[in-house]
Amino acid sequence: MAHADLIWVDGKLADSLPLPDRGLAFGDGLFETILLVDGKPVLVEFHRQRLAAGARRLNFQSVSEGFDQALELACDAAADVHRSRHADTSEARALRITVTRGEGPRGYAPPAQGKPRIVSQLSSLAPEILTWQAPARLGVSSIGLSTQPLLAGIKHLNRLEQVLAATQCREQGLDEALMCDQQGAVISVVAGNLFVVSDGCLLTSPLVQCGVAGTRRRAIIERWAPALGLDVQQQQISVQQCREADELLFCNSLQGVRGVAQLAGRSWTGNPVARALHGQYQGELRMRGLP
Amino acid sequence: MAHADLIWVDGKLADSLPLPDRGLAFGDGLFETILLVDGKPVLVEFHRQRLAAGARRLNFQSVSEGFDQALELACDAAADVHRSRHADTSEARALRITVTRGEGPRGYAPPAQGKPRIVSQLSSLAPEILTWQAPARLGVSSIGLSTQPLLAGIKHLNRLEQVLAATQCREQGLDEALMCDQQGAVISVVAGNLFVVSDGCLLTSPLVQCGVAGTRRRAIIERWAPALGLDVQQQQISVQQCREADELLFCNSLQGVRGVAQLAGRSWTGNPVARALHGQYQGELRMRGLP
Repeated sequence: MAHADLIWVDGKLADSLPLPDRGLAFGDGLFETILLVDGKPVLVEFHRQRLAAGARRLNFQSVSEGFDQALELACDAAADVHRSRHADTSEARALRITVTRGEGPRGYAPPAQGKPRIVSQLSSLAPEILTWQAPARLGVSSIGLSTQPLLAGIKHLNRLEQVLAATQCREQGLDEALMCDQQGAVISVVAGNLFVVSDGCLLTSPLVQCGVAGTRRRAIIERWAPALGLDVQQQQISVQQCREADELLFCNSLQGVRGVAQLAGRSWTGNPVARALHGQYQGELRMRGLP
Repeated sequence: MAHADLIWVDGKLADSLPLPDRGLAFGDGLFETILLVDGKPVLVEFHRQRLAAGARRLNFQSVSEGFDQALELACDAAADVHRSRHADTSEARALRITVTRGEGPRGYAPPAQGKPRIVSQLSSLAPEILTWQAPARLGVSSIGLSTQPLLAGIKHLNRLEQVLAATQCREQGLDEALMCDQQGAVISVVAGNLFVVSDGCLLTSPLVQCGVAGTRRRAIIERWAPALGLDVQQQQISVQQCREADELLFCNSLQGVRGVAQLAGRSWTGNPVARALHGQYQGELRMRGLP
């Protein structure tokens, strides 16, 4: 990395987390990974709303004030560095904002009056991440996502399934992998949401039983696909449907929209829908100052 | 609590966790909650073996050295305080040893050469915890445990389901609750394993799809039930079977063996099997110096 990461805990620069903390003890918390371009956050309202939804689901006190403070501190720090460099090219950074339930006594039951703790970490990214990426080689993960409607959609800290699946991807030399639920329905990729292009329509999993409702997924559904005149349907998807798709693509907050080159023997070239959606995504970035 | 908790990170007294840490970021880690009586750990070999099994499952480097060091530091500290008091009564403490995958770069994939981090916390317990507890009032949690054979049995840090279920118990004024899997089979209570007494036999869930294989569960299966001439069968259990049971009991590392007084309209008195198993448990404690 070009620069050491900056970390804040509850608004103060820090290099450690006060203990005990329920985020560490039980994964009792939430996070958002926000792309900053030249110190400006991308699709921040979608991140704020997903975090607020997660906080309601886990019965946290309001976290919006802490989120806004963490965001402001990180954006200011990133913008300062950017200005001091007089750089011609855009700078990309990842801001991870983690919200935990904070301190608490021993045991699973949360304190009645707990105060959430905000840990934010600002990391540099390679600037190429803002451009179109080579389409990805995908596999099908053998790790099934577990069904838990109470936690589906939100971005909580219980991520061992993704850790195991990402390990498997690396071992197999893959860029990404489809993750299915325990019944074999395709939910997402390990770190992002999947879209299947079929007969000119985009299909994506409804994420009511598992999965994370990504901010770029929401942008595709609400903004980018409509801008291209593409219909999006949320429906159950099979691995077979993915293999037979006209095109596959996935999205996440740092890579934006990425095409798929290969999946289990099938390959695709051109990736026209992924490229068109990536164009919409870049429009979103430009609105935030990207040249 | 009678005393402030003591916390160690990687063998040094500490009040905070170095950041970044994958335990916080993804719940990428394991834990054990060990009962210390007068500074002596109870059933420590079962804890050590379960932790090692979890470390293999998550592909951690060996954690046995860090575990032993954390255990020694905590036992020494607890024994020192105990001796300095010349107390007639036994002192109970909870030692939680948390092992995380330690530092790592951004993203789900773990570092190839990560070094696990050990966080241990020593807390005081009320001495009554070592004696027979009033049988518990149980409900049936509406929160279904998700199915994930890759994580079943081990005691990992992804515990949001237990956090939600414990919150529900408190709101309903219950001591504990049955937790079922998504198909309705009874797996455990929120913080412990369940045994059903039926026709002189003990039944408990096999925990191959979800649940935590508790150390006291193992002691009941391997030692305490055999010592009483009781047969134990691991089989699927329904809520109906629990209601119709001759007796219900649960176990965990801090409460030992506890009887059940009520479940969803049914009540039990006497709790003879729970009391007999608790007697075995107290024998185990006496071997470790309890008067």
